[in-house]
Amino acid sequence: MNLWKHARGGVTAPAGYRACGVAAGVKPGRNDMALLVSDADATVAGVFTTNRIQGAHVKLCRERLKDRRARAVVVNAGNANACNGPQGVRDARRMAALTAGALGVAERTVFVCSTGVIGRPMPMDKIAKGIRLAAQSLSRAGGAAAARAILTTDTTDKQVALEFSIDGRRARIGGMAKGAGMIEPSLATMLAFLTTDAAVAAGALQAALAAAVEHSFNRITVDGDQSCNDTALFLANGAAGNRPLTRTHRQWPVFVRAVEAAALALALKVAEDGEGATKFVTVNVRGAASAADAHAAARAIANSLLVKTSWFGEDPNWGRIIDAVGYSGARVAEEKVDIRFDELLVVRRGRMASAKSPAELRKALGKKRFSVNVDLRLGRAADTVYTCDCSPDYARINSEYTT
Amino acid sequence: MNLWKHARGGVTAPAGYRACGVAAGVKPGRNDMALLVSDADATVAGVFTTNRIQGAHVKLCRERLKDRRARAVVVNAGNANACNGPQGVRDARRMAALTAGALGVAERTVFVCSTGVIGRPMPMDKIAKGIRLAAQSLSRAGGAAAARAILTTDTTDKQVALEFSIDGRRARIGGMAKGAGMIEPSLATMLAFLTTDAAVAAGALQAALAAAVEHSFNRITVDGDQSCNDTALFLANGAAGNRPLTRTHRQWPVFVRAVEAAALALALKVAEDGEGATKFVTVNVRGAASAADAHAAARAIANSLLVKTSWFGEDPNWGRIIDAVGYSGARVAEEKVDIRFDELLVVRRGRMASAKSPAELRKALGKKRFSVNVDLRLGRAADTVYTCDCSPDYARINSEYTT
Repeated sequence: MNLWKHARGGVTAPAGYRACGVAAGVKPGRNDMALLVSDADATVAGVFTTNRIQGAHVKLCRERLKDRRARAVVVNAGNANACNGPQGVRDARRMAALTAGALGVAERTVFVCSTGVIGRPMPMDKIAKGIRLAAQSLSRAGGAAAARAILTTDTTDKQVALEFSIDGRRARIGGMAKGAGMIEPSLATMLAFLTTDAAVAAGALQAALAAAVEHSFNRITVDGDQSCNDTALFLANGAAGNRPLTRTHRQWPVFVRAVEAAALALALKVAEDGEGATKFVTVNVRGAASAADAHAAARAIANSLLVKTSWFGEDPNWGRIIDAVGYSGARVAEEKVDIRFDELLVVRRGRMASAKSPAELRKALGKKRFSVNVDLRLGRAADTVYTCDCSPDYARINSEYTT
Repeated sequence: MNLWKHARGGVTAPAGYRACGVAAGVKPGRNDMALLVSDADATVAGVFTTNRIQGAHVKLCRERLKDRRARAVVVNAGNANACNGPQGVRDARRMAALTAGALGVAERTVFVCSTGVIGRPMPMDKIAKGIRLAAQSLSRAGGAAAARAILTTDTTDKQVALEFSIDGRRARIGGMAKGAGMIEPSLATMLAFLTTDAAVAAGALQAALAAAVEHSFNRITVDGDQSCNDTALFLANGAAGNRPLTRTHRQWPVFVRAVEAAALALALKVAEDGEGATKFVTVNVRGAASAADAHAAARAIANSLLVKTSWFGEDPNWGRIIDAVGYSGARVAEEKVDIRFDELLVVRRGRMASAKSPAELRKALGKKRFSVNVDLRLGRAADTVYTCDCSPDYARINSEYTT
C-alpha cells in the first residue's frame, strides 16, 4: 500500500511557498535565476558535495545550516561561483544580503545556490538586478518557472509533488532539481530542492534528507564526474499544522517514505536526462558478498564508458559488463555470475547463456528503458544504480559547452 | 646522456627472433594472428591485468611463467577467449599445443595471448589453420607484420627498437603493443610484447619489466575501462652473448633504462592512438602531499570525461580539471592550486590567472600535443599520466564495435 499519492506541481505544491524564475541575464535569452520563499520560517536540512573543491555557496550554506532556519533560497544558473577565492564567498554573501533586503527577511535565513561554469567571476550587477526582479515575481504558481530557471544543459525541468496525511492533516512534499552532466553518486549530486508544509523537527528533517539522498541522488550516475557544487536543501515550514515530526512520531515512517519517493523521482529524472542520453538503464546487482561490493559492482557497470556506449549501439556486449564487475573491486567468481537484460538470461554461470540469438539479445536493448541485472551468487547483498547510455552527443555537448 | 639509441624494427630487431602475421580468418579480410618465436629458449617475464575476471590466456600464461622459459608466443585478435569457462582454458591450451607441435618445441615454453570480443567461443578450426600457416611464415623481417596482426580498433601499429651495449656487446630490445580502448592504468594494460637478445636472469627480467610497466603502461589511460586480458610479456634469449644480467651487474642500470624507454615508447603510442582521439595529453601533477595523492590527482584528470571532451573542443575549461582534482581523493587546498597548459599559467592559487585572454587559452589547447601541469603546492610528490581527448568518435566506435 502506498502511504502517499502523487500531486500536481513542484516546490510550491506544499502550502506556504512561493517561487519564480526570472532572467538575470547571466545566460542570454533565457531565465537563469530562481527564488524560492517560505511564507514563514522553515526548518532546513542540507546535504552537500564531498568534493574537496567546493563552490562558494556550499561554504555559505554549510555555515547557515547550523541555525536550521530558512526563509528563502536564491539560485542562479550560468555561473557556478566556484574557484573564485574570497571574492566568490563575498559574492555569495552579497546574493543572500540582497535577497534578504528585497524580501525583508533576516539575512541568515537566506540560502544561495549557484550552478554553471567554474572559475568565472560572478557578474554581480546582473545578479543584483535579477534578485530585485525575482523578489517582485514570486507566486504560488511559480514553481514550474523556478524549476526551468535552474537548468543548464538539462533538456527538461525536473519536478515532483507528493501528498500524504500526518495527524489527520493533508501535507505535501514538493521538489525540483537540475543536473545532466557532472553527475556521480557521492553524497548529493547536482542541485535539488525539496519543500514540505509538514512541521518537522530540524534533526529529524536532516535525517530524512540524508537517508533519502543515499538511495536516490547517491545512486545515479551520468559521467562519473562529481561536481563541486552539489547541494540538496529541504525546507519544512509547518503550514500543514501537524504536530512536529520527530523520529518517535507514530507517522514518521509515512514521512520518510514520502521523502524517499520524492528524492528518487527527482534523481531518476536527472539520470534520464543525462547529457546526450537516449536510454535510461537500471543496474541491479544482487548476490554480492557485502553491501559495499554490491554498490561497487553496480557503480562500475553504470560508469563504464564501454558499457554505456554499447547500450547506445543497442549492442548486447555483456563482456564489457562482466569486465567492469571484474575491475570494480567487488569479490566475484567468474563461474558463478548470472547476467540478465530485463528478464532475459544472457550470461549463466559466467558464460553466454545458450539459445539466445543475437536478434533476441538486441531486442532487449532496443527499448528506451531496460534493466541490467547481475547476480554474483556469492552472498545476499544487493544494490541499484540508475544511469543512462553514452552517445556521441555527450562528447559533442561537453566539447561545445562553456566558451 | 642516453645510455641507448633508437634502432629500426620491432620484436625481431634483437638477434635470434622471428615473427609473422597471418590471416586465421577470425577477423574477416585482414591478418589476425601473430607468432613470435625465439630461436633458443628465452627467459621470460610477465605482468598481467588485476581485473578479477581474467581471460583464459592470462590463466595459462601465469601458470607457464613459473618455469620462466619461453620459445614462442602466439597471439590472436578478434576473440578475447574470456568468459568462456573451462572450454576457454582448454582452447588456450590447445593453441599452445598446436603451436608447439608445428614448431617442434616443448609445449610448456609456448605462451598464448588473445584480444577481441569477450564471451564468444573460440573458432578453433580457424585458429588451428592460422597456427599451421603462421609456423610456415616466420622470418626475421616479420616483426612489422606481427605488430599489425595483433591490432583491433587501433589505427596504427605500435613498435619500438632500442640498441645499447652490455659487456662490450651490442644488445637490443624490441617491442610491439596493441590497445586503443579499454585502457586504464592498473598493472599492465593491453597486450605488449618485448624481446631482447641480452642474456638476463629470470628474476632480474621480471623486476625490470615490472618496474618499466609501472611507469609506462600503468601511466596511460584512454577510457578508464580495465581490460580482463591485459598482458605484457618480455623474452630474453641471450643471443647477444653477454654475461647474464642480474641486479648486481655493473651495467644493470643501462638495461633498466633501455627497458623503461622501450615500454614507455609503446605505452605512449597506445595513449596517442586512443579510440577517437585527436590529441595526446600529458598530465603532470607536482607538489602533492604523497605519491599516492599525485597519482590519484593525475589519474582523475586523465580519466574525467568532462575534461577529455573539453580538450576535444579546445576549450580551456580549467574548472573541470580542478573539479576532478577535488574528487580524486588527493589532499588539496583550493587556494594553493596552480594550473598551467604547457607553460601558460591559467590558474594561480586556485583562481583564474589574470591577463589571459580566452584566445590565448584556446591557442594552448589547439595543439595536437600539450601538457596540463598541476601544482598542488602541498608537498614534494609528483606523477605523470598520459592520455588523449575524448571525441564523439569514441562513442561512435564503441557503439558499433562487436555485433
